[in-house]
Amino acid sequence: MTSPDYASDPTLALAQALIRQASVTPDDAGCQAMLAARLKPLGFNCQRLPFGDVENLWATRGDAAPRFVFAGHTDVVPTGPAAQWTHPPFGGLIIDGMLHGRGAADMKGSIAAFITACERFLARYPELQGSLGLLITSDEEGRAIHGTVKVIEHLEAAGQKFRYCLVGEPSSTRQIGDIIKNGRRGSLGAVLTVKGIQGHVAYPHLAKNPIHLSMAALHDLSHQEWDAGNDSFPPTTLQISNINSGTGATNVIPGELEAVFNLRFSTELDVETIQLRVAAILARHELDYDIEWTVNGLPFLTEEGDLVAAAQAAVQEICGYPAELSTSGGTSDGRFIAPTGAQVIELGPLNATIHRIDEQVSTEDLITLSKVYERIMERLLVTGQS
Amino acid sequence: MTSPDYASDPTLALAQALIRQASVTPDDAGCQAMLAARLKPLGFNCQRLPFGDVENLWATRGDAAPRFVFAGHTDVVPTGPAAQWTHPPFGGLIIDGMLHGRGAADMKGSIAAFITACERFLARYPELQGSLGLLITSDEEGRAIHGTVKVIEHLEAAGQKFRYCLVGEPSSTRQIGDIIKNGRRGSLGAVLTVKGIQGHVAYPHLAKNPIHLSMAALHDLSHQEWDAGNDSFPPTTLQISNINSGTGATNVIPGELEAVFNLRFSTELDVETIQLRVAAILARHELDYDIEWTVNGLPFLTEEGDLVAAAQAAVQEICGYPAELSTSGGTSDGRFIAPTGAQVIELGPLNATIHRIDEQVSTEDLITLSKVYERIMERLLVTGQS
Repeated sequence: MTSPDYASDPTLALAQALIRQASVTPDDAGCQAMLAARLKPLGFNCQRLPFGDVENLWATRGDAAPRFVFAGHTDVVPTGPAAQWTHPPFGGLIIDGMLHGRGAADMKGSIAAFITACERFLARYPELQGSLGLLITSDEEGRAIHGTVKVIEHLEAAGQKFRYCLVGEPSSTRQIGDIIKNGRRGSLGAVLTVKGIQGHVAYPHLAKNPIHLSMAALHDLSHQEWDAGNDSFPPTTLQISNINSGTGATNVIPGELEAVFNLRFSTELDVETIQLRVAAILARHELDYDIEWTVNGLPFLTEEGDLVAAAQAAVQEICGYPAELSTSGGTSDGRFIAPTGAQVIELGPLNATIHRIDEQVSTEDLITLSKVYERIMERLLVTGQS
Repeated sequence: MTSPDYASDPTLALAQALIRQASVTPDDAGCQAMLAARLKPLGFNCQRLPFGDVENLWATRGDAAPRFVFAGHTDVVPTGPAAQWTHPPFGGLIIDGMLHGRGAADMKGSIAAFITACERFLARYPELQGSLGLLITSDEEGRAIHGTVKVIEHLEAAGQKFRYCLVGEPSSTRQIGDIIKNGRRGSLGAVLTVKGIQGHVAYPHLAKNPIHLSMAALHDLSHQEWDAGNDSFPPTTLQISNINSGTGATNVIPGELEAVFNLRFSTELDVETIQLRVAAILARHELDYDIEWTVNGLPFLTEEGDLVAAAQAAVQEICGYPAELSTSGGTSDGRFIAPTGAQVIELGPLNATIHRIDEQVSTEDLITLSKVYERIMERLLVTGQS
């Protein structure tokens, strides 16, 4: 039972239309114009905010506080070998209850779910106790430098704040809505270069082998207990991803060693504390070294509050089971939004197939998700509902 | 005072003639034919023993025991950028008492010194209490698989033994004859592959990082006290020459780590003992690994005996200072000869410039070296001289 036509359900039909635009990052491929065409009739003011080769959409309906913003991205990761897909990656086909295609779960499905949620919600409540917004980029899956980060800078400069932000990233793991991400760990990278003195393996007393010098220090780094985590975060971890030293010759002691490592860190730590502790470990082993740090993202946490409460209540009401809070996993654009002071959560489809061949999402899940989004808005922006 | 002509001294003139043949390994470039032409008038039976692309010469004069064999090679290492040489690398020019050119010290100079030593010696003593031999290859500086090792196999198969072997490698360090090498350490190489499980740095619990697993074991390997050496050998050393792990991406935990190491080991250890000790260290750290071993050479030692005594006495008599015994430094073809049971020493020119731009040797040293060689033969092969 396959069909290239559009589904009769509005959420599924919009998701199909978005998937059929091959918007491989950072190409938006017309998706945001399609969204704007749906939002304008609802009273949204739609503003294009292009930066570099990245298309961004900032759509708002009203100015009253509190403002509830849906954040997402129209770009998708590349398909990989299209021949390996069971169904065309930009086909948007619905087969046996599953919507297939690149972006189905990450995250055209949740964008469609939110747009139709707005349509139903605003039809019921044209006057809100607050306002709505959408922050959509086409640069989340790529370098992430001309997208959300730039839009937030622009909004901050313009004094435009918002209290609530729901990022439509695929947070669910076993069933729709079972996990709400209410924060993310920080990510800190380092390139460590340990210096020795090159020489011949037969004359080690004339050389200083940087491999021999580094092993104990790298063992300490990799076995350090950084913190115990806290109620919201798992313990901080450090992983050495790359280590390289040697000339290729088997009789030459190399002159230096390079190790690349990354920390995923909780709110118990900050960048400076980590850097000081790493420096202390390296100093204890008396290494001669250079180190270059890269802050990929600071940790953030949305403490339990009205956004988290509304989302958990909505999942319980619509799905009939509780939603668990989590801060695990990789980074997302939430890291750029949280520093504004907004409450930020991520709630979206199951993430089992994202970034893979045969990405897909349950049609029933998308329809349920749209109802959850609608219920969250109702609880936050309609008097007497929360 | 430069001259392209030949020196009047026979040792220097022969060394010049050999240097002017550009015999870059494994090319003999006619050098061995030149030697045979000098040896035949002295009563030597000269046998070509080519293997593969390598030219070898086995020349003997008489069959009586004991036989004294000079071992050497006519091949030289490449010159490197010829423009960087002060004098042409195959010019054989004598300037201010120094003979210049690739092979001057390693080891065309000592071959010439030995040939002229034979000429003088046999003129004085046509009848010997023993016999003479020369084992010359053109494969010492290269892969060393079609040279001395093959000739020794051939001689062993033919039941041809010899008691004494002097290798003309440049053993001297500050003045001619100051160091006699009476053995060499063994060389044992290994490629260790430690296995982990690849994953994402944000989910370390789903992966096994082979870098983290290996650091303590590699620290132990590199800080192990293998032995204390002995009277003849310095302590055994292990050097890790190469370590590599990582996909290049900073967010991926790699699946395996490769470390390459080399041991230079004394006669206190053997290959099997080392392998067992390495295996015990790796087992103690519970590593899942593969290891590939390469035996580059076994250690050998010529205990003090009549060859060492004759060489030390000759240096003392001719040079006026004592020669020290040593087993330090890299490998040489002596490793292939010692297992036959022969007494093996290395005694040749200063090694300061070998394998470098502007390789050179003192003309006075070469003349002295020829006298030392002559005196050693006299002590070993003439009754009443030792």
